[in-house]
Amino acid sequence: MKPYAEMTKEELLEEKEKLDKEYDAYLAMNLHLDMSRGKPCKEQLDLSMGMMDVLNSKVDLRCEDGTDCRNYGCLDGIPEAKVLMGDMMENHPDNIIIYGNSSLNVMYDTVARAMTHGIMGNTPWGKLDKVKFLCPVPGYDRHFAITEYFGIEMIPVPMTKDGPDMDMVESLVSSDEAIKGIWCVPKYSNPQGYSYSDATVRRFARLKPAATDFRIFWDNAYGIHHLYDDDQDYLVEILAECKRAGNPDMVYKFASTSKITFPGSGIAALATSLNNLEDIRKQLKNQTIGHDKVNQLRHVRYFKDIHGMTEHMRKHADIIRPKFEMVEQVLEEGLGGRNVGTWTLPKGGYFISFDSLDGCAKAIVLKAKKAGVIMTGAGATWPYGKDPHDSNIRIAPTLPPVSELKTAAELFVLCVKLVSVEKLLEA
Amino acid sequence: MKPYAEMTKEELLEEKEKLDKEYDAYLAMNLHLDMSRGKPCKEQLDLSMGMMDVLNSKVDLRCEDGTDCRNYGCLDGIPEAKVLMGDMMENHPDNIIIYGNSSLNVMYDTVARAMTHGIMGNTPWGKLDKVKFLCPVPGYDRHFAITEYFGIEMIPVPMTKDGPDMDMVESLVSSDEAIKGIWCVPKYSNPQGYSYSDATVRRFARLKPAATDFRIFWDNAYGIHHLYDDDQDYLVEILAECKRAGNPDMVYKFASTSKITFPGSGIAALATSLNNLEDIRKQLKNQTIGHDKVNQLRHVRYFKDIHGMTEHMRKHADIIRPKFEMVEQVLEEGLGGRNVGTWTLPKGGYFISFDSLDGCAKAIVLKAKKAGVIMTGAGATWPYGKDPHDSNIRIAPTLPPVSELKTAAELFVLCVKLVSVEKLLEA
Repeated sequence: MKPYAEMTKEELLEEKEKLDKEYDAYLAMNLHLDMSRGKPCKEQLDLSMGMMDVLNSKVDLRCEDGTDCRNYGCLDGIPEAKVLMGDMMENHPDNIIIYGNSSLNVMYDTVARAMTHGIMGNTPWGKLDKVKFLCPVPGYDRHFAITEYFGIEMIPVPMTKDGPDMDMVESLVSSDEAIKGIWCVPKYSNPQGYSYSDATVRRFARLKPAATDFRIFWDNAYGIHHLYDDDQDYLVEILAECKRAGNPDMVYKFASTSKITFPGSGIAALATSLNNLEDIRKQLKNQTIGHDKVNQLRHVRYFKDIHGMTEHMRKHADIIRPKFEMVEQVLEEGLGGRNVGTWTLPKGGYFISFDSLDGCAKAIVLKAKKAGVIMTGAGATWPYGKDPHDSNIRIAPTLPPVSELKTAAELFVLCVKLVSVEKLLEA
Repeated sequence: MKPYAEMTKEELLEEKEKLDKEYDAYLAMNLHLDMSRGKPCKEQLDLSMGMMDVLNSKVDLRCEDGTDCRNYGCLDGIPEAKVLMGDMMENHPDNIIIYGNSSLNVMYDTVARAMTHGIMGNTPWGKLDKVKFLCPVPGYDRHFAITEYFGIEMIPVPMTKDGPDMDMVESLVSSDEAIKGIWCVPKYSNPQGYSYSDATVRRFARLKPAATDFRIFWDNAYGIHHLYDDDQDYLVEILAECKRAGNPDMVYKFASTSKITFPGSGIAALATSLNNLEDIRKQLKNQTIGHDKVNQLRHVRYFKDIHGMTEHMRKHADIIRPKFEMVEQVLEEGLGGRNVGTWTLPKGGYFISFDSLDGCAKAIVLKAKKAGVIMTGAGATWPYGKDPHDSNIRIAPTLPPVSELKTAAELFVLCVKLVSVEKLLEA
């Protein structure tokens, strides 16, 4: 199709008239569709219903080491949960603490602890004049919300297909002692679905931070969340690589089963060095007597081992892969050749990232909303909600049924075209 | 029996010789008994096994308002859990946030939030030179651990049978702006089992704090944990009383089902004013997407309503009441008339508080430990673990089986006698 930028004013006006009519037709449909959040759909949740059966009143609720999971105790998780999550995260069970239902909560607590008590004997961040985090962009809004809440200055770092711009990361981290962390979603990143290349991970592990308490916040949210069985991304394991590089304490790695079993009723985990774990336990013992061991046991008894979990993830993929492919197809059919947007083709994770012409994202999201399709707010993928190009939009295809998703994607494409044409007419 | 203090030196030496022999006999028994923590026993845990059956793969996991409890969302709890916990806590569901598995964690987070962000727009405690908490003593070691961890100065306030010394509380709170809180276990207090009198609660509600961000940390841990069906303590409800007294925002009230269903796998809740809730939600939304709704639903479906919960608590009482009474009987038989110790006779909760002669508690606990009976560390019931009288010992009778508990209590009595005699011989 002809790029809009090559159309004459008359052609654009004609196109706009046509698109306006299409849009009016959508308005008349009175839609209520949601592509805003990375939520599993009902069919995905149904996959884990068997987990509700593995524990019942006849089952022995003691774990392997004899601990009665029904009672107090066991601050950092039952042994078999550490093994399962260790296999999932590619880390040794001894390097793992099992938490409650939310890895976001673990990240929040990790920042909160650094604010009030510092990391491994260093000055609490709250006592410093300035604390900064690097934020690969586009990125995850809830990461940015945590650092914003604690008054941490966020510095955007552009993402590439291989991960964050490592020249920039290296230069900033080694020169500015106020930089204490970086938010990473290293595999099937949020929202682009990019996975960090081997070179990127190696350069992360070899960082020479000016701050001794600099930490990589490695949110491995989509570690086993592949879309394709025969085409998966593999990452160099960051803890091991940091250890080899002589930076054993530089990374906190987070994961959870939220998008494996039930969001909100899964188990979260942190993997890090023994030094960091010792530092964390000093705080954790004041915060709680222990997390939900019955739910840990429920997960282990259900999956049995990492193979059970892997097979389970194939079923998730079978449900959501067609949704990703359908959205990608609608984008290609509607926008291919128009040169008014680019989008990613992830092999895993929960999102597709879309970039419109500069200055169009907010208008596109607003137009979709007016016609009853909720997208993630434009700007959400940037710190402080401020996308300087006003171009990035996160598409979350998992929640709606396929038929609704098709309608929503088609409306989205229409909104992109309409706003782009209007933009070009303004110029 | 003759008070030890009235014995001659010869009589004391004779008594000591007899007691030493008895102690040697215990040493030979090679005991491993634990009266240290307020943990339910196996029979109590068994009471809730039916809760493992109420949810299974055939059950609809949507809650009353249609929310799918398996998915993300619902930051502050499902409606029916608010109703159940509201009935349990004697508060309106609108005043409640349902949390995860640990009320201790909620208290910790409440202090942590006040440290970094302040309460309702006031200066964050972490930015102040000095923050102080009042700590009724003897009290709960894990409360004191939280305030100590955050560098908050703890001021002991003596407990009476009616609650904390309110003359002292009123005087301190109204005169010192640095005093930001007080730890309270108002009903069947930890460790004495005292319940605050109506007058005490009324005086709490009428406090005139120098600090606008002063808060009462009202840990209603044993709100429905009665030992007797026909002899229960009732408290004036603190939120309502504060509201009537014109101090609607002055209290945070905490509770959980930890000692109702499974410790570590229950649900916790906070009840407070709408102003406080709004303040808290601003933080909570950055910390998590929501707590475990499936477990909330499990609790509601199991108990159905507060009547179900009340009946359930009668079964707990039937199991642990004989343990309390047996310990009390062993104490009376062994120490009655000796004038070397006093102890409480709680009508609920999880502990008996014992006071030895001054300067004897550590030695008693140590002697018991050497013979294989673990007590809560002497001093634990005081801030910083420092009991100035070295006299208070917390007895936790719930965990051991009755037969073992009898042996443990008898050994404890022997240790009290032995250490007391040695003390008197020194004098």
